[in-house]
Amino acid sequence: MKRKFCKLRKVWLLVGLFLLGPTAFAFAEEPTSASNQVAINTVWTLIAAFLVFSMQAGFAMVETGFARAKNAANILMKNLLDFSIGSIAFWLIGFGVMFGADTLGLFGRSGFFLGTGDPSTGDGLWQFAYWMFQVVFAATAATIVSGAMAERTRFPAYLFYSFFISAFIYPVVGHWIWGGGWLASKGMVDFAGSTVVHSVGGWAGLAGATLLGPRLGKYNKDGSSNAIPGHNIPLAGLGVFILWFGWFGFNPGSTTSGTNLSIATIAVTTNLAAAAGAITAMFTIWAQYGKPDTSMTLNGALAGLVAITAPCASVSPLSAIIIGAVAGVLVVLSVQLIDRVLRVDDPVGAISVHGVCGAWGTLSVGLFAQAAYGESSGVGPVNGLFFGGGLSQLFAQLTGVVSVFIWTFATATLVFYAAKKIVGLRASDEEQLRGLDIGEHGMEAYAGFQIFTTE
Amino acid sequence: MKRKFCKLRKVWLLVGLFLLGPTAFAFAEEPTSASNQVAINTVWTLIAAFLVFSMQAGFAMVETGFARAKNAANILMKNLLDFSIGSIAFWLIGFGVMFGADTLGLFGRSGFFLGTGDPSTGDGLWQFAYWMFQVVFAATAATIVSGAMAERTRFPAYLFYSFFISAFIYPVVGHWIWGGGWLASKGMVDFAGSTVVHSVGGWAGLAGATLLGPRLGKYNKDGSSNAIPGHNIPLAGLGVFILWFGWFGFNPGSTTSGTNLSIATIAVTTNLAAAAGAITAMFTIWAQYGKPDTSMTLNGALAGLVAITAPCASVSPLSAIIIGAVAGVLVVLSVQLIDRVLRVDDPVGAISVHGVCGAWGTLSVGLFAQAAYGESSGVGPVNGLFFGGGLSQLFAQLTGVVSVFIWTFATATLVFYAAKKIVGLRASDEEQLRGLDIGEHGMEAYAGFQIFTTE
Amino acid sequence: MKRKFCKLRKVWLLVGLFLLGPTAFAFAEEPTSASNQVAINTVWTLIAAFLVFSMQAGFAMVETGFARAKNAANILMKNLLDFSIGSIAFWLIGFGVMFGADTLGLFGRSGFFLGTGDPSTGDGLWQFAYWMFQVVFAATAATIVSGAMAERTRFPAYLFYSFFISAFIYPVVGHWIWGGGWLASKGMVDFAGSTVVHSVGGWAGLAGATLLGPRLGKYNKDGSSNAIPGHNIPLAGLGVFILWFGWFGFNPGSTTSGTNLSIATIAVTTNLAAAAGAITAMFTIWAQYGKPDTSMTLNGALAGLVAITAPCASVSPLSAIIIGAVAGVLVVLSVQLIDRVLRVDDPVGAISVHGVCGAWGTLSVGLFAQAAYGESSGVGPVNGLFFGGGLSQLFAQLTGVVSVFIWTFATATLVFYAAKKIVGLRASDEEQLRGLDIGEHGMEAYAGFQIFTTE
Repeated sequence: MKRKFCKLRKVWLLVGLFLLGPTAFAFAEEPTSASNQVAINTVWTLIAAFLVFSMQAGFAMVETGFARAKNAANILMKNLLDFSIGSIAFWLIGFGVMFGADTLGLFGRSGFFLGTGDPSTGDGLWQFAYWMFQVVFAATAATIVSGAMAERTRFPAYLFYSFFISAFIYPVVGHWIWGGGWLASKGMVDFAGSTVVHSVGGWAGLAGATLLGPRLGKYNKDGSSNAIPGHNIPLAGLGVFILWFGWFGFNPGSTTSGTNLSIATIAVTTNLAAAAGAITAMFTIWAQYGKPDTSMTLNGALAGLVAITAPCASVSPLSAIIIGAVAGVLVVLSVQLIDRVLRVDDPVGAISVHGVCGAWGTLSVGLFAQAAYGESSGVGPVNGLFFGGGLSQLFAQLTGVVSVFIWTFATATLVFYAAKKIVGLRASDEEQLRGLDIGEHGMEAYAGFQIFTTE
Repeated sequence: MKRKFCKLRKVWLLVGLFLLGPTAFAFAEEPTSASNQVAINTVWTLIAAFLVFSMQAGFAMVETGFARAKNAANILMKNLLDFSIGSIAFWLIGFGVMFGADTLGLFGRSGFFLGTGDPSTGDGLWQFAYWMFQVVFAATAATIVSGAMAERTRFPAYLFYSFFISAFIYPVVGHWIWGGGWLASKGMVDFAGSTVVHSVGGWAGLAGATLLGPRLGKYNKDGSSNAIPGHNIPLAGLGVFILWFGWFGFNPGSTTSGTNLSIATIAVTTNLAAAAGAITAMFTIWAQYGKPDTSMTLNGALAGLVAITAPCASVSPLSAIIIGAVAGVLVVLSVQLIDRVLRVDDPVGAISVHGVCGAWGTLSVGLFAQAAYGESSGVGPVNGLFFGGGLSQLFAQLTGVVSVFIWTFATATLVFYAAKKIVGLRASDEEQLRGLDIGEHGMEAYAGFQIFTTE
Repeated sequence: MKRKFCKLRKVWLLVGLFLLGPTAFAFAEEPTSASNQVAINTVWTLIAAFLVFSMQAGFAMVETGFARAKNAANILMKNLLDFSIGSIAFWLIGFGVMFGADTLGLFGRSGFFLGTGDPSTGDGLWQFAYWMFQVVFAATAATIVSGAMAERTRFPAYLFYSFFISAFIYPVVGHWIWGGGWLASKGMVDFAGSTVVHSVGGWAGLAGATLLGPRLGKYNKDGSSNAIPGHNIPLAGLGVFILWFGWFGFNPGSTTSGTNLSIATIAVTTNLAAAAGAITAMFTIWAQYGKPDTSMTLNGALAGLVAITAPCASVSPLSAIIIGAVAGVLVVLSVQLIDRVLRVDDPVGAISVHGVCGAWGTLSVGLFAQAAYGESSGVGPVNGLFFGGGLSQLFAQLTGVVSVFIWTFATATLVFYAAKKIVGLRASDEEQLRGLDIGEHGMEAYAGFQIFTTE
């Protein structure tokens, strides 16, 4: 009985050891506790990365479901391409900007095109694992934007934007907070990216949606807003379940270590915050309109997940429930405020879910952090305002929230403005009427189905 | 080149060790074989929990696909909310009732709101991992019921029920069998929950569907039954594939140990039983009606999975095929019996799949168990009737099946009866005609599509 | 507080050790670095197998989405049944043919029905893990074919075929390359199965589609081809994301070892090739037709994934991008060639994606392999033509590509011809018009929706 792995081992093990010497611990004949620890951490980090990748499917389904049928193939293409272009851009430039040698606390300047990944050393192999984990985070920030700009953005403009967010906008923020930059020096805590990933996506979406203007027919002459219902709520619901699933890679995986047993605590806080967010969003909309709206409840679960992403490794389960519960109320109010007061048309609620609730979650570290959780997870012995820590942590968090908003909104506006000038940003009214599937891609998403297009 | 994990390690490792002393093995500088084993078990248990979570998406898609388009958003909401409310209820009460200090073999009385989870000790961190694994099981039992009660249940009643099954009904059964209760003392074997999870869900669904009565138009005046076809078979098929995928967390994960190498055997028995169930269900319905019905075949795969859940760690691959094959035939006959003889309207076949096949799977341990498999997996050296074990194990299994049926059917009837009196259980005929999406949630699942509603 | 695992451990650990002696390392009281390494490898291999299983959902969604609504339930059934029948066939016969004791370098002749899996020994338990990993590969090869033969194949013929590909056609090729057969002796490298899995599926699909003839209405009297658009692009897009996700089990998992740290490198090459394939396919079709078609771009991502499957453990990230980029162009040209020149009707492009790009990926090892990568991963110190390795590796790869084409095309033709004679291969024109869902399964996929059937 032959086995692939054993065959390989038998033939190449000795060769490998002979040629490569002590660096080749991937093939150490005798496993040690140290080599096993590295393997556990690598396996955990990769599997977490794969779960985070699955969130691309989740975002694609949520955005597709909340859009109209005539724009479904377009939304899908955006989700596929922002990941594809983002992967190449992050390999080429982004990873180096984010984690390369620090320049004045602002950006990295080495490690481009995975130049630090050397397959013949342990450190080099870890670079590959770490890049894999980071690229799916970069792509998450990128893909959030497609929802806020859905149903009216020209496809070439979206490709243009996708490159820049993954190559520059996101990695700079990542460097500030996770790459040893100036916000890290200030002690800001954003364990898994409420700000780094979600707010960046949300604020870039706000910039894009503002510059684009609303969808044809979204606002009436008297300024009142029309609801434009999504065409496939089951797909949107599936997307939310997939996102929740992927978040178990996003948050617990951010230890990048399976031997850090706080992964268990983080999974629990993540799950409870999501549950609380769904419940409070449901009751909020129920109280307002007399019925528990499915779309808003789905967004409530996401709001809880986004909010717990920064504090997940620093707070207790009870605090996680409170953080998620606040996010669930906040997302409903924010969606209404952005829609009716700011009059920014955000078809899926991405700005509220990711931008606003990302900010709330980041701030919540300054309120709810408890040293016992942070010490165990490696975040450090941080106490928030409610646990005797004073205002200093809250101030560090606020500094991060504000500065990342300014950077992202400014640079994203610049990128979308450039896109507007170079390739054109907004689809024509005629194209919006027929649908972007026909206009941009020359096809239909649901051939054979009888569909009534609105507006 | 900085890495998040290394940065954290460098800064906090020494601090952590200094402050926390020997309990902080999450950050032990020197990994040992013992600390690595704990990490492997924690990583395995968490990843298995994430896979089981994904089954929520699977159930949501199966139930949505098998219902009509006008009730799709409602079904989704139920699936989202039973998990959300269930998570909070299981944190607050359920986990303590299930695994707390035993009271007369009947229920637990400590460990509420994760009071046993202390992030600064290894045992405390394991409590978090273990809770995470258990909460997704509790939620699985809860979510099964929404299928049996689909298309006619008022949403507030379902929320009411969701709390009680996750806080009391399920945890009491769990205590009896997994928490050191009276059925555990009798030697009953239900490795991953054919009875604890699936039959509880199935019997609670039977209680609910009986109290509710059939959907409008399901039965004719002469007592004959009308088939009400599901509206989206591709979604239902997707759901079955997701459930099958998640079951690889459900069954092998129930070792809660990755160093227990029987996880491999359990994966194999799980897969073969599902395959056999799909095949025999298909041929059964084919023989009856001349065509291999897709819906029934999908339920056949689920029937095999439910049946193998109790015996998966005690039987050989060949026995697993037989157990799954029997379940595939059984589910077809049971669906027909419940529909036509008992006249209980179960839109997705949940009572047959989870209740009946869960009972069959539990009994099958008493027939097919082999000591060599049980010793390896940790179930113990149990032999079933067909392998020289006599009738004693079969009797223990039967005791469990019957007592769990009585407990669940009685308490679920009580809960649904209370829901009926307090918030109302059944949607009006008018609401059923228009669909629960409009009636309960004020929205449509498929805006823009031309849909003919039946009945 | 009781825990299931601890309970089991406490009760059975000593019993187990006493009864089983030193072979029972699954329950070794004292974990060692060696026992932990086995556990890490088992956990990794099983989780990878579960990810590969999820590809069944991906294939089902891609094929369903690209077919017409009237054939959706039929496609689903084929995907469910080829996995179910394939699981039983691979257990009964296929695994033994593939990995059993070698006979003249051509096929294996032992290890049928998992006879080598003994739950009381470590080697036996590993056999179960290894079988689980291999069965999902066998089923992938099988399921590819349903796409090429979609919308016109009689269901009983497909069941007939499913058994033979999983029992004989695929395992023989597997033996040649992974089971120590004649191609392995020639030094052919196909790390994760561009040829073993994907080309076998693609060429079997070519044989089937050729024998079947085109769908009713596909070709006009003047020989020109009609596009028949898929009915549900969101489902197809979801399927591609799921497949990409599952490929992270397919390729990195093929180390069958989590302590082989090249799993990180393989994840990176896999991801970059997929991204590159999507991008180049999009630009190719955009250049040809003026619009970036969503369906073709989705196939481009799959083309990149198929191509990188053979070289993933032997090439650099940059080479992976090139290999994927070439595949993205190739798949567009190949789809057009097969459709218009060969006039073989392949509704989902399976022959091009899996057959042609599988061949390209296999050959690319002979061009791009670098010893540093292969040594680290265990493939061995192979250099391709572009890295100073001369033509010998390329020739070994070409030998494999050609011989597998001949074997698969010939045997699959034989099987489909037998199916034609015994149960009938092609659905009648009337059945194709009404749809195979009604004709083969007596049901509709989308009850209640208004659907216009084409042709």
